[in-house]
Amino acid sequence: MTERRHDREFVRTFFTSPTAVEGEEDSAKMLRRAAQLRGMQAPDVWVPDNEDATAPSMRDEGVENIVEVVSEHGADFPGEIHPRMVWHRDSPTTRYQGFQHMLDVADPERGAIEHIDGFVIPEVGDIDDWKKADEFFTIVENEHGLEEGSLKMSVIIESGQAELAMGTLREEMGKPTNNLERLFLLVDGEVDYTKDMRAITPTGALPEWPELRHNTSRGASAAGLIAVDGPYDDIRDIEGYHERMQDNQAKGMLGIWSLTPGQVVEANQSPLPPKTGSWLLDTGDGEVELDSEDGVEVYEGDRVSLSETTDGYELTVGGSTQVLDSDELHEELLNMTAYIPSMDDIVDSMEEFEAAKEAGRGAIAMERSTTLRIGDTEVDIATDRMWDEATYQAAMTPISLFQDVYENRPDQHEELVEMYSEGVVERAMEVGL
Amino acid sequence: MTERRHDREFVRTFFTSPTAVEGEEDSAKMLRRAAQLRGMQAPDVWVPDNEDATAPSMRDEGVENIVEVVSEHGADFPGEIHPRMVWHRDSPTTRYQGFQHMLDVADPERGAIEHIDGFVIPEVGDIDDWKKADEFFTIVENEHGLEEGSLKMSVIIESGQAELAMGTLREEMGKPTNNLERLFLLVDGEVDYTKDMRAITPTGALPEWPELRHNTSRGASAAGLIAVDGPYDDIRDIEGYHERMQDNQAKGMLGIWSLTPGQVVEANQSPLPPKTGSWLLDTGDGEVELDSEDGVEVYEGDRVSLSETTDGYELTVGGSTQVLDSDELHEELLNMTAYIPSMDDIVDSMEEFEAAKEAGRGAIAMERSTTLRIGDTEVDIATDRMWDEATYQAAMTPISLFQDVYENRPDQHEELVEMYSEGVVERAMEVGL
Amino acid sequence: MTERRHDREFVRTFFTSPTAVEGEEDSAKMLRRAAQLRGMQAPDVWVPDNEDATAPSMRDEGVENIVEVVSEHGADFPGEIHPRMVWHRDSPTTRYQGFQHMLDVADPERGAIEHIDGFVIPEVGDIDDWKKADEFFTIVENEHGLEEGSLKMSVIIESGQAELAMGTLREEMGKPTNNLERLFLLVDGEVDYTKDMRAITPTGALPEWPELRHNTSRGASAAGLIAVDGPYDDIRDIEGYHERMQDNQAKGMLGIWSLTPGQVVEANQSPLPPKTGSWLLDTGDGEVELDSEDGVEVYEGDRVSLSETTDGYELTVGGSTQVLDSDELHEELLNMTAYIPSMDDIVDSMEEFEAAKEAGRGAIAMERSTTLRIGDTEVDIATDRMWDEATYQAAMTPISLFQDVYENRPDQHEELVEMYSEGVVERAMEVGL
Repeated sequence: MTERRHDREFVRTFFTSPTAVEGEEDSAKMLRRAAQLRGMQAPDVWVPDNEDATAPSMRDEGVENIVEVVSEHGADFPGEIHPRMVWHRDSPTTRYQGFQHMLDVADPERGAIEHIDGFVIPEVGDIDDWKKADEFFTIVENEHGLEEGSLKMSVIIESGQAELAMGTLREEMGKPTNNLERLFLLVDGEVDYTKDMRAITPTGALPEWPELRHNTSRGASAAGLIAVDGPYDDIRDIEGYHERMQDNQAKGMLGIWSLTPGQVVEANQSPLPPKTGSWLLDTGDGEVELDSEDGVEVYEGDRVSLSETTDGYELTVGGSTQVLDSDELHEELLNMTAYIPSMDDIVDSMEEFEAAKEAGRGAIAMERSTTLRIGDTEVDIATDRMWDEATYQAAMTPISLFQDVYENRPDQHEELVEMYSEGVVERAMEVGL
Repeated sequence: MTERRHDREFVRTFFTSPTAVEGEEDSAKMLRRAAQLRGMQAPDVWVPDNEDATAPSMRDEGVENIVEVVSEHGADFPGEIHPRMVWHRDSPTTRYQGFQHMLDVADPERGAIEHIDGFVIPEVGDIDDWKKADEFFTIVENEHGLEEGSLKMSVIIESGQAELAMGTLREEMGKPTNNLERLFLLVDGEVDYTKDMRAITPTGALPEWPELRHNTSRGASAAGLIAVDGPYDDIRDIEGYHERMQDNQAKGMLGIWSLTPGQVVEANQSPLPPKTGSWLLDTGDGEVELDSEDGVEVYEGDRVSLSETTDGYELTVGGSTQVLDSDELHEELLNMTAYIPSMDDIVDSMEEFEAAKEAGRGAIAMERSTTLRIGDTEVDIATDRMWDEATYQAAMTPISLFQDVYENRPDQHEELVEMYSEGVVERAMEVGL
Repeated sequence: MTERRHDREFVRTFFTSPTAVEGEEDSAKMLRRAAQLRGMQAPDVWVPDNEDATAPSMRDEGVENIVEVVSEHGADFPGEIHPRMVWHRDSPTTRYQGFQHMLDVADPERGAIEHIDGFVIPEVGDIDDWKKADEFFTIVENEHGLEEGSLKMSVIIESGQAELAMGTLREEMGKPTNNLERLFLLVDGEVDYTKDMRAITPTGALPEWPELRHNTSRGASAAGLIAVDGPYDDIRDIEGYHERMQDNQAKGMLGIWSLTPGQVVEANQSPLPPKTGSWLLDTGDGEVELDSEDGVEVYEGDRVSLSETTDGYELTVGGSTQVLDSDELHEELLNMTAYIPSMDDIVDSMEEFEAAKEAGRGAIAMERSTTLRIGDTEVDIATDRMWDEATYQAAMTPISLFQDVYENRPDQHEELVEMYSEGVVERAMEVGL
C-alpha cells in the first residue's frame, strides 16, 4: 500500500464547530463545548471552522477564539485539531486572509500551535492552487520556527477542478519545489460542489455524486491519504446517515463529516465491525435481518414462505413458487442468505488463517452454518468460503482501522471494551501483526 | 466559478437538421424549416448537421445550403447557429474535408458567417486532435479577416480518448500555441461512443454511460464550458426523455440534444423551475406526486394507509404497519415527503435569505408546511430547512439559467410570462444581482 | 477505432491455473489438465498462474512446471498462453523474482517460449512501475534473441494508482524509451483493489466497483487494448456470473476471468448473440422473458393483465389500471416490450442495411412485429427502428467478436455451427467486410 506519512492511518470523523457566534455572551461557546468532548462523542479530527460555519464578519474574532480555546483545552483533547481557514481558488483577497489567519494561529508564543495538527483549506482549485496553499504553510512554518512540513494540510474537494487535481497528486507530491507530502485528508464538500457543477434537483436535495466519492477515495489510495465524505444535512435522519456511511465504506471512504456530537457517535462506530453477527435474507425486495432465537435464525415476514411436502419443499418468494428437493433448497437458501460477521468472528477467521499459513497452507475453507426458520419450517444451511492471502488482506481493513483507533484514542478504550469485551479487544489488537 | 468566455452561460437545447436531403425538390427544406423556428420551439443552439444526419454524397451540397439558408434567415434566428462539419480522429481525408467546408461557409462575401457563432466538430480524439481542429479554425479566421478566436468550437465526445482529453482542458486552454479558449460546448455522442467502447446490450439499446456524463459535466465545470447530452432516439417516449434530462441535471449537465421541434420544447422547459410547487410521497416503491385539493395534499394510492387509533396512529407502508404517537408520525411523514418548489417559491426563499444577509445573519430557517390526507386521515406537517450562503448559491443555479435564457432569448419572453406571470418573471430577474 | 497491435481483437476468457500444487504426486497436475482443454471449455487466454493461485514456496517449481507443460502441450493449445509472474509495485525483491522467472521461462532452448504469447504482471502501480516491467520484457527478449516487443504484456489493475495510470497509456505508449506497445489486456483484480482502496462491506462481499470497470474499459478503448473483468468467486452462482457479464458488456468490457472450465464455457458464450431471439416485457418490477408459443409471445405472470372492454382495453400493471383505446394500447405495449435479436436477426439487419447503403440510402427503418398474449387477450404490435451508419457500426460489435472468435478458434467451429447452423455462421462471417 502507498506509504502513509502521518500518525493516523484512518479518520472516522471530521467534526466542525463555528469559531465565533454572534450575539452570544461568549462568542467562543461552541468551540469551548466541542473542545471538551471525550470518548465516542469526540471526533478523530476536530475542525474549528473559521469558514462557512462562521459569519464573515466574525472570522477575525474566530481566529482569536481558536487560539484561546486550543491553548486552554488542546493538550487534553483526544483527537487531532485542524482548524479550517478561509480560501478560494478565485479570490486572492480570501487566500491572503487565510494566510494571515494561519500566521496568527500558528504563533508559538500564543500557545495554540503545539496542540494543532494542521489546517483545512476549503475551495481549492487545480493543483497549482493547492501549491499556493502549501507554500503559505511553508512560510508559516519558517516564520514561526516550526519544522518544514510538520503542519498537515487537508483540503475540501468542492469543484470539478479539485476533483481532477486528485488524479495528479501522486506525481506532484514528490516534486522538489513543494511540500505537498503534508497532505492528510481529502474531504468532499457536496454543497459547493453541486454549485460548481451547476447541478439541479427538483427538490433541491443534493445529488449523490457517486463518481466524485469514488475519485476522492481513489485519489487518497494513490497518494497515501485519507478520504472523508461531506456533511449529511438532515441531522434527524439517522438511518439515512448510516446508509450513506455504508455506501461510502464500500467505496473505501471510511470517514465522514459530523455536524453534531450525536453524528460523531454514529460515525465513530459505523466502520467498526458489529458486536454480534447477524444473518440477512434476500426477499427479492431488499434484504432483511433475521431474528436470532436460541441459535435459530427466524424470518417473520410475508414475502418468503417455505413448506415441506411429500416430495420435498415448496419455496415461495414474492408470489412465485418453486418445488425443490432438499439439495436444491439448500443451494437456493445459500443464494438468498448472507452473514454479517461480528468482530469476534472476523478475529476468529483471521487467527485460523494465520495458523494455517504458519502450517504451510495457502488457502483454507471457512465454514459458516446455521438453522433457518421460515414459517414453521426449519432448515440447516452450511457454506464454505475459501480464504487465501488476498481474502485475508481484504478482511484486515476493519481490523486495521480498529487497531488505529485503539492506539490513538485511549479515551475510547472503555467504550470499546464494553462493546466487544476485554478478550475480543485483546485478540483484535494481536491479529495481523 | 471558472471564468466563462462566451455570451451564453447555459445551453438547454442542441437541435440538429440535415443540411441536404436527397430526393426532395428543395434539398435544403429541413434547414429552411428549422431556421424559422421561434420561441420554445427554437433551440438555444441550432446545428445545421453536415455530418451524420446528411448522406456523405450530399455534404458538398449541404455546405451550399448552409450558406444560402443562414444568409437569408440567420439574422432573425433567435438562438445561436453552429453548423456541424465532418471530422474524424482517424482520417486525414475527413479532417481536410471538414477544413475546406469551414473555409467555404466562413467566406464573408457569402453572407452567412456573420450569423454563425461557431462550428461543431464530431469524432475528436485526444487533445492533440482537438488542437488540429482549433488550428483550422484559426486559419479560417485569418484567411477571412475574422478576429482570431471569434468562432466558437464545440466538440462531440464519442470516444474513450476524447473522454480522457476532457481531463486536461483546463491546462491546455492556457497554452500559447493554441486558441482552445474558443471551446464552447462538450456534447456527448452515445451511439458512436458505444461503438468506440465496443459495448454490447442484449436488445441493442444504448447503455446509460453515467460515468461519461459525469466526466463531461466535470470537464465543463473545470474549463468554464457547457455540457450537453447526446440524442434521445425514442422520439415518442416523452416520459423517458424527461427522466433522462432530470438525471442529467443532477449531474450538472443542463443541456441535451433534440431531434425534433417537439423535443426542443420539452428540453427548453425541463431545467426551468415549475410554475407550481408540488409534494412528493415516498411509498417505498418510488415517489408519487400528491394531488393538491384546497391546500390539502392528497394521497390516493394503495401502498400507504394511515388511521387514527385511541393510542395514536397506525401507518402502513407496503404491507408493514407501525404504531406511532403524534410526534413519531410527524417525523416519519417528514422523512417520507419532499417538496418541489415552484419558481415563485425559489424566488421567495432567495429574497428572504438576501434580506437576512443584509441584516447581518448568515443562516436562517426556511419553513415549509402543509396538510397531508392519506385515506380519511389528515395530518399537518411542517419542517425547517437551514439556508446558509452555500445553500443560497446552490439554489441560484436554476435562477441563473432562467436569467441567461431571459436575456438571450427575447423570443421566449411571452411564453415565459405566460408560464410564470409577469410579477414572478420580474422578481426572478432581480434576484442574486 | 484506435489501432490494435495484436492478433486477437477480443478476449472473452482469462482462465488461471495454479502452476504447482503442494502435496500432489504431480505438482503440475492442474497445469496439465488445463493445457488439454479444447472447444468451449478452452479459454481465449490461458494463464498458468505463478502468483496468487500458487503458494509462495512453490513458485520456483511452478516455473519449471510451466516450462515442462507448455513445451509438451503448448503447440496444441487452442488459445493464447500468458503465464502470470510475481510482481509488486512496493517490493523490489518481488519484482526481481518476477524478472528471473521470466528469464527462465523464456529461454528458447527449453522449448516453451515459442508457444507463449506474453506474460501477465499483477500488482502494478503508477505508469513508471509499468515501465519497469516493460523494460524487463525487453531485456528478456534481447537476452534470448526474441524480437523486441514480441512478448505481450498484460497487467492486473488492483490499485488506485494503476487505475489512474490507465488514463495516460495512450500518450505513454508512443514514447521512444519504452516498448509499451506490447500491452495487451487490462484485467481488473477486485479483491486486491478492495484492499488497496481499504473498502469495507458488512458481509465481506466485494463492492461492485462500477467506476473502476468503466475506467478500465475506457483505458482499453483509448489505447487499443482489451478490457477483462476479475474473478467471480461464487462458482456455483451461474446466474450471478451471467448478470455480471451482462453488466460488463454494457461497459465495453467483453472479457472476464474464469476460475473453472465451467465458468470458461459460460464466459465464452456470454458475449455471443443468442441462437434464438426473445421478447421481454417490463412489468414495472423488472423485465421477464415471454414464452414463445407458435409465434405468439405469452405472458403468464400476475403483475400485468389485459382485457378487452366495449370501449377499448383495460391494462393493469402492478395494481394500477389504465383504460386505453387501441392506439394507446399499442403505444403502451411498445414502451413495455423489447426484443433481444438472435444472431440470425442481427445478420439479417446488417445485410439489409448494407444493401440499402449500396443503393444510396443512408438510413432505413427496420420493422419488428409480433403477437402478444396477456391473459386471454391477444394484441399485435409492430415497431420501426431507424438504422443509420452509426447504428450499423454499433451493432457490428458482437459480429466482429464472433468473427474474431471464428478466425482464431478453429477448435470451437463445431460447437458454433451446432449452436447457430452452418448458414448463419457463413453469413455472419461475410457481414461488414
